Order: sequence, then C-alpha cells, then structure tokens
Amino acid sequence: MLRTATCGELRADHVGQTVTLCGWADKYRDHGGVVFIDLRDRYGITQIAFRMEESSETQKLASGIRHEDVIQITGEIVSRGDENKNPKLSTGDVELRASELKILNKSKTPPFEPRGESLANEELRLQYRFIDLRRNALQEMMVLRHKMTQSVRNYFDELGFLDIETPIMGRSSPEGARDYLVPSRVHEGTFYALPQSPQLFKQILMVAGYDRYYQIARCFRDEDLRADRQPEFTQIDIEMSFVEQEDILSTIDGLLKRMVKDIRGENLPTPLPRYTHADVMERYGTDKPDLRFGMELIDISDLVEASGFGVFKNTVGNGGKVRGLCVKGGAEKYSRRILDNDLKNLVGEYGAKGLAYFKVANGGLDSSIAKFFNEDEQAAIVERMGGEDGDLLVYVADSYDVSCASLAALRNHIAKDMELYDPKELSCAWVVEFPLVTRNEEEDRWDAEHHPFCAVHPDDAEYFESDPSKIRALSYDLVCNGYEAASGSIRIHDPETQQKIFDLLNIDPEEAELRFGFLLQALRYGAPPHGGIALGLDRWVMMFAASDNIRDVIAFPKTQKASDLMMGAPSIVDDRQLRDLSIKIDIPE
Amino acid sequence: MLRTATCGELRADHVGQTVTLCGWADKYRDHGGVVFIDLRDRYGITQIAFRMEESSETQKLASGIRHEDVIQITGEIVSRGDENKNPKLSTGDVELRASELKILNKSKTPPFEPRGESLANEELRLQYRFIDLRRNALQEMMVLRHKMTQSVRNYFDELGFLDIETPIMGRSSPEGARDYLVPSRVHEGTFYALPQSPQLFKQILMVAGYDRYYQIARCFRDEDLRADRQPEFTQIDIEMSFVEQEDILSTIDGLLKRMVKDIRGENLPTPLPRYTHADVMERYGTDKPDLRFGMELIDISDLVEASGFGVFKNTVGNGGKVRGLCVKGGAEKYSRRILDNDLKNLVGEYGAKGLAYFKVANGGLDSSIAKFFNEDEQAAIVERMGGEDGDLLVYVADSYDVSCASLAALRNHIAKDMELYDPKELSCAWVVEFPLVTRNEEEDRWDAEHHPFCAVHPDDAEYFESDPSKIRALSYDLVCNGYEAASGSIRIHDPETQQKIFDLLNIDPEEAELRFGFLLQALRYGAPPHGGIALGLDRWVMMFAASDNIRDVIAFPKTQKASDLMMGAPSIVDDRQLRDLSIKIDIPE
Repeated sequence: MLRTATCGELRADHVGQTVTLCGWADKYRDHGGVVFIDLRDRYGITQIAFRMEESSETQKLASGIRHEDVIQITGEIVSRGDENKNPKLSTGDVELRASELKILNKSKTPPFEPRGESLANEELRLQYRFIDLRRNALQEMMVLRHKMTQSVRNYFDELGFLDIETPIMGRSSPEGARDYLVPSRVHEGTFYALPQSPQLFKQILMVAGYDRYYQIARCFRDEDLRADRQPEFTQIDIEMSFVEQEDILSTIDGLLKRMVKDIRGENLPTPLPRYTHADVMERYGTDKPDLRFGMELIDISDLVEASGFGVFKNTVGNGGKVRGLCVKGGAEKYSRRILDNDLKNLVGEYGAKGLAYFKVANGGLDSSIAKFFNEDEQAAIVERMGGEDGDLLVYVADSYDVSCASLAALRNHIAKDMELYDPKELSCAWVVEFPLVTRNEEEDRWDAEHHPFCAVHPDDAEYFESDPSKIRALSYDLVCNGYEAASGSIRIHDPETQQKIFDLLNIDPEEAELRFGFLLQALRYGAPPHGGIALGLDRWVMMFAASDNIRDVIAFPKTQKASDLMMGAPSIVDDRQLRDLSIKIDIPE
Repeated sequence: MLRTATCGELRADHVGQTVTLCGWADKYRDHGGVVFIDLRDRYGITQIAFRMEESSETQKLASGIRHEDVIQITGEIVSRGDENKNPKLSTGDVELRASELKILNKSKTPPFEPRGESLANEELRLQYRFIDLRRNALQEMMVLRHKMTQSVRNYFDELGFLDIETPIMGRSSPEGARDYLVPSRVHEGTFYALPQSPQLFKQILMVAGYDRYYQIARCFRDEDLRADRQPEFTQIDIEMSFVEQEDILSTIDGLLKRMVKDIRGENLPTPLPRYTHADVMERYGTDKPDLRFGMELIDISDLVEASGFGVFKNTVGNGGKVRGLCVKGGAEKYSRRILDNDLKNLVGEYGAKGLAYFKVANGGLDSSIAKFFNEDEQAAIVERMGGEDGDLLVYVADSYDVSCASLAALRNHIAKDMELYDPKELSCAWVVEFPLVTRNEEEDRWDAEHHPFCAVHPDDAEYFESDPSKIRALSYDLVCNGYEAASGSIRIHDPETQQKIFDLLNIDPEEAELRFGFLLQALRYGAPPHGGIALGLDRWVMMFAASDNIRDVIAFPKTQKASDLMMGAPSIVDDRQLRDLSIKIDIPE
C-alpha cells in the first residue's frame, strides 16, 4: 500500500508515530511560516502541517498544491494541543507534521468544489459525477447503501434463503410499463427484454423447490420518468414456499428490525401495525398513508346532510361524502388567500370542485359559510373533529374517491408545510386486504390491482359472480413515510384458480399463453403454495437517509430523460452494429 | 407456515413428536399393508408411512399420490429400528407415520424424473427447467453458489470494501466483443449498451475516492458462444486505490483462502505460487497452465541441433525449437495408431506439422526415428526428460509459439486421458508480468494484451522506442485448473501515460475520446493510483463443484444459440413496441 494509515484513523494515542497518508488536498491555508492542508479520503480528513523551517524541497512542492491534487505525505503525528484541536473532526486532536511529500497526480481546477452542499446545477454535477461523488454527503449515501444491502444479505442468509441470480435478458411481456428491448443478432428479427421484475422467475424457483429465495435484483422500466423514478432500479426480491401471508409479513418485520438495528442501532418495535385497505382509505384517503403524523380524515356527512349549506347537503343527498381534516393550530397559519388559492388548487388537481373551511373560535365555527350551520350543528362538527380554538377545519364535499385522493394530498401538503414530523423518522405499517381487481370503466373490464397471480382471500370466492370489486386479494403493501415501500402477495399455485382469474380479467387463453406461458406450464407440474414480496432498495436508502432525491442514492443515476450525462448514454452506434442486429433506425418524419 | 419442520431435519431425538411436513412425492412404494412415500424438499428426504389400518380417508388419498405431487402430511415421528434405518439419508433413523394428508397440488406426469443423473436430453431439460432444477445435483449447485457469493461478500465487507452498483444500461464502446444494444425510446436513433464489464465505472469510483469497491456484477457479451460461455455472466469485480500489485494479489489470496475455508472447511496455503508470463510459457506453453499435474514442457533443442534427424536439426537451425513432454508410464497407453492419428491431429490443430515420439526402453529411445540419434544423444535426451523405462516422450519441432500452443493442448489432453489429477482439486497460481502489447501482424500494429488501461512495469519504459514487445504490464492473471480464473492490472492514473499508450496502440485522440472519453476526463481531475481485478463467478462455482457444464451453475442459463428455452426468449415483439423505439427489422434477403 502507498499509505500506512487512512485519513480517518489518527487519534491522540498515535502521537509520536510516523505514518504515510494518501488522499486529496481538500483545503489549503498558508499561515505565513506554516502551510496547512486538509488531506481527505473516504475515511476522513487529517490536517497536514508543512513548516517552513523543515525540508525546503517538500515546502516548495507543498506550496504548489491545489485543490483536488492527489498527494502522499509522510511525517510524524503531533498533538494539536487543547487550544488548536478541532472537535468537529474525528482526527481533530492531531496533525501530521509533513517531512516527505509526493504529488501522485495533479488535478485540473474542478468545475465545482466537492464540498458541503453543492451549489452547482445538477446537470453539471451529473456530467462530472466523479467530482460530485467526492462530496461527503454522497459518500455517506453509498456507505449507507452498502451497509443496508449487507444487512439484508446477512439477514436472509441466516434464515436459509438462497441468493439466486435471474436473467437480465428475458422475454418481453407487453403489458403494464414498457419493456426495454435488446435485439438478438443470432435470431434475426427477435428481441430480448430487460426484466421489469423477477416475478415469474421467482415463482418458477418455488415450483423448482428452492423454498426460500432472495435477490437484490436490477429491474428496468421504460417509462416517462417522474422525479423519483429511474429507468433501472433495484429491488430486494423475496419468495417463500409453504407460507401464509402472516409468514411473509413477519419475515419482513424481522428484516426491518434488523436493518434499523444494524444501521441506526435502534430498536424498531414489531410486529408493525397492520391496517386493512378499507381502513386506510377511510382514515387517510390513500393506500400509502404517511403515519409519521395523525390528522386523519373525518367524515361529517351525517352531521351536515340536513344543514342549510347546499353544497354539503346536496353532496350527501347524491351519495357523496363530506370529509375533512382538523389542522391543529392552523387557523393562524393559513390565510383566506392561501386557502382559496393554493390549497383549493391542490385539491382541485385531484378532482375536488372546492375546499370549504372554518376556523374554530369560541367553540364554534368561524368562516364565511359558518352562518349556514346552526349552533348544534357547529358544536357537533367541532366535537367530531376534535377541534379546539385556533384549529383550522378543511372539507371536501365530493364522491368518496375524490374526497380520498384530494384530502390525502392536502393532508401530506399541510403536514410538510407545518413540519408535523421528523424527516428522519421511519413510520412503517402494513396495508392488507387490497381489492383483487379494480374496475376499468373506460375499457369496460376488470384490471388486476397488483398482478394476475395474486391469490384470493378464502372468504371471498362467492364474489366472483356477484361483485368482483368485493374480492380481497391475499396481497399486502408495506407503507413507510407515505411511500409504497414494499408490495407482495400470496400467489395462485394451481392452474384452475389461475384460469379463473384470467377469465375474470378477460385474458384469453392465447394471450395468457403468450404472456405467461412458462409459468402456467410450471403450475401444472406440482407448484407449492407460495408467496413473496419486493422492496424498493433505492427508496429504502432514501428513507434511511431522509433524502428526497433518488439520484443521491445511486452511484451513476440517469436523468429524467433517461440519459447518463457522464458517459454520454444513450449514444449513436455504428451502422455495422445495426446491420449485425438486423435492425435499422426508422424515425418518422 | 404450512409445515412445522422440513424434510431434512428429523432425527432419532424427535421420535414421539408430532410434526407437519410439506414437499414433493419423490418415490412411492406400496408394500401391501403399508404405503411408503419419500417426501422431498430442498432440505432433504423423509420417509412417510401410511398404514392401512389407520385413517382410511388418508389411506385413500395416499394411494392416489403420484410422483411430484405436492403434499402436506401430519403424523408422529417413529423410529425405523436398526434393521430398517437408511444410513444414506440424514433423516434415515426415523419415519413419519402419517395421520393426516392433504394434497396441496397435483402434478402432471413430468417429462423426465428430477432424480439422479438426468438421462433426458439437455434441450428438454432446459425447456422444463423448473423440473430439472429439482434435481439434487442442481440444488446443491445453487446452494454452493449462494454460499460462495455470501463468503465473498462477507470477506470484502470485513475489509471495508463498498458494494456499489454500476449501470446495466451504459454506452456502447465498439471494440473487442460485440455489445448487446438497447434502443432508446426517448432519444430516437440512439442506443444504450449492456456492459461487457464495469471496468470504466470502477475506475471512475476510484477517481471519486471510494477507495475499495467490489461488486458481484452481471456482464454481457454478444459472442458466438463456446461451450463454456454464456451471453450474460457474473463477475466478482474489485478495485482498490493507493495500491501496488502486491496488495491486489494478497487481497485475492485472502479471498480464496476464505472461500476454501467457508465452502470446504480446508486450509488453502497462501501466498499462492507466482510465475512470470515468460516462465509459464516456457514450462507449460500457455498462460493458463493446469497445475494439478507436472509433465512440464522440456526443451531439447540444444541436444538435437547436431543430430542426424533432419526435422529436428533444421528446425533448430532455422531458429525454431524442439520441445516435448515426458508421459510417465505412457509407452503402453499410447499405441502408434493413436500417436499418428489422434495426437498428431490434436497438435496439428495448433499448427504443428508433426509429432515425433519415442518410448524409453533400456535407458535409450525406441521408435522408428530412434536410429537418427546416437547413443550419447539418446542418453542425454532421456536424462533431460527425466525418462524411465516405460515412459513416452513426445516432441513438436516448430516455432516457439507453435510448440507452446500445441504442446500445451497435448499436455492437457494426456493429463485428462491418464487421469493425472483429482477433478475436485483446486490448483491456483498467479501469472504476472504479462506483455503489455502483442503484435498484430495482419493489421501491422500493436494490440493491448489486456486492455489499454494497464500500467507499465517501471523498469520497462525504455522499450517504448526500442521494442514494445518487451514492455511488461503491471497485469496479472490468476490461473486455476487450466482456466483464467481472474484477471486484473494496476491501471494508468495519469493522462500523459494514458496518451502514450494510446499512441503506441495507434488509437487517435478522436477515437480515444469517443470510446473512453469520460474516463480520460476523470483522469485529469485527480485520479489516485489504483488497480483491480475481476473473477469469473460462474467459472469459480464450476471449479468448486468440479463441474464442466456452465449451465449447471446458472439457474436459468441460455443455450449456445443464446436462447432461453423455458421462457422462449428472444421472441418476436409487437410492431407497436418497435415503432415506439423508432426502429424496424431489416433482415437482408
């Protein structure tokens, strides 16, 4: 090694030793007779002192050092003394008095400094990713990601799960998101597809008797990207045989407990809370509730159906709902201007035609529409909402679905705005008993809520004929901080049930064969009861790091246009390459 | 869980307990009053006994069980007694006396039995991979692979390496093997490429200060496949900063020691032996020698240059070499017919015009050409070769390169034929000091022996002008059992040296920029000295398993035509998908 120690390990006990360090020149300060350089590597920063009275050759070299030069320094560790020590650095008790210096590599002046919060624009940072990745914040993110995956691997290894690699070059299954395709050279005119998930393979592994499988698997979706999506992403993928829903849930409870212990040294109480899908829709308006704060949705339909306020009355009369939130201490925070503009627009994005609101004052309601409610009605509303003077009450009067969607968005918005939670907190819960199917009115059919392989709740077989919307799937999501952090189900293991589901979804046998043929085939040869789940690793790293930028947790991320700005991908390729693949470019005019 | 124990864990101490097992009906035997079923899962086999006098309902069900049905059985564990116990099974002391039976899933009659050595042809087995993967041999292979990767991960984690994921969708670098391409939908007419290795990314990570990186990385090459290659394969990829060659070698020595300990419980003596490239070429004729046996190449040029045998004499006179092998006890094994046909043809494939041979008898040579050598010459040859009566001496008289290639192949052939080694033995060694470049006579230029980023041996700078063939690279291969099991180098870390290498390789600046632009850019901003290595995981699993079929160590392998026969990939895709990607199929007539 070109060093005998790292820049993060020197302490007071090392004083008097001679060591060699290597690293990058992070900061440079010339204090007359002494030049100080902060030497940086992945492990920390050590202060180097070059004293003028010492070796003049070294001195000369040192004076030429610039930011980000790579240097090797040998010298004696000396104490910085009480007055000069730097408590912010783990190595802050000491400094290295340089006696030898070698410049291992010079650096051009970097386009931005890889220190602290970067002020450079993200495009430049992505283009010079090798500079940006030197920032402490990003290095910590990569270390965190490593620790998390190692924690996951140890957990599953100890439980007897096998890490089995599934193919990246698979078969296109044209549904849901778009596949990325790979033209085959050998079989002209045909294509591989990159997997959107290893779903079919992990089920096949259960049929093949592997019993407990996990993989940290790369997945691909050719979607128009939202801010928190990447074209390639990573999931912790799990499947188990001879299990029931409870076994999967408790296995994942254990995984999270382990990760929280390994990463934060904290105890995560388990089992995690469980809610039914119907319950979270009622209380939070979404199947991905952020549980770091309360402020649940409250239904006042019954209190206002006979009121003098036409909007409320008519909504309830027409089968809709009047639901709202009680924003504790929100009366002062939210002016009429914000309510009538920003917040009204926000709920409008989710289809709500308006936003009604009151302030709680003197135990009653205060607003321009308060006059439409008599004293009893006002008291009942305040009581139902748990309102106190100074609180803000906001309502959406609309269909159940619109009130859910709009109030869920409003709840998240207000909570963030009012800082109702600690961004570092992890608040996880299970949502179970999802509906098996949802109505696709446009195409007049039933769509699978998750995918067509979810098993059916044993009590709900009767609804196949009478009302498929009532069929509950044996599927479950883990929600954390308002995100779907994991999703899974018990799978169908017999071909007859699978056929019944395809019939319900209007997938004809030919289409089923084309899309899932090899899985259907496998189910006919002794498939065990099995189930599984997948956790989005990128999202989990973000949550542990309290980051809201997915590009911060991936070493080489792509932009929202799916470009890698550093390497310049995608790019134009040689005609010869296309000829070899029997394809040509065909851009419509 | 649907079971309370697995099929591999019941022992004599469990007698008297009631347990529930789940698994596949492996074997079925009706012994009049008792039906025996071997119940199988990943963990083992447990014998189940259904006695006729017990529950008749269960009895009736049991009689309908067929191979590969999935069943759940509850019953009492009873001792099989000394006379009936099966020492071949870990559970062989006991059986489960079934009181309840549930058929969880029926199986169609499988196309072949997933037991023992499969006699079915490989195409059928790949098509029904979910059946074939039930075979014990394949399950053991997947468990081995899991254990090996876990061992690798623990080793590197403990040493402070970070597991960092690099992109699968990258940029095409048209050289060497063909890239698999992925058309971009967003950027019409452009393509991503699947990585042939994470080489550039891992170097970038060093530039970014990550210091120690590893990844078990999927790599892709669109080659016409040889028997032991797959279009997607996995490598253990490693890079370190501030290191010298010695540090990489000792890190990998430690890795192998750890793996051998974890997997086989044995101590692998380290440091592993090291040979120079020149040395192994001289002694084994190849840079991938199989060191499980001796039988080195021996040069007798000096002994025969004045002999009466024209072929030898002229070869040496023209600057060629006469080299050969001493096959211990081979005189009887190899008849003149085999020598003149099979073995002569084998060396002929590597360009050798003939194969000369003698048997050692009475301390001298015995063959049709022995008469051309006088007694002293014969004695000198026998002595040089270490020959004893009954040995076979075989020679190729040709250029140095042809004698290397042909004798290396012959050496491997004979060793396998004569069973000179234990297939399970692991015999590893380092080959160092590879030449930096090799002459490409056809195109009149120098090609990189490994890749253009290898650093140069510090003593060899002078040869850039005088004789580039003499430049040694700081590159190293780990050879094991005749395979290149790992390959790596210290990298160039400064842009000037990199430019010098590009000049030597005749890569002009524009081409360099196009192919490696982002790495060259990164070297200008403070790249540390660094180096690394990559180990082929599939190959390592094969070596630990003593398997010679790469498809046995990959859960879902592809054929030599790069097809996945189970899922039917590659396949035809929708026209809509191609339109979305702005490509069309263009098969030449």
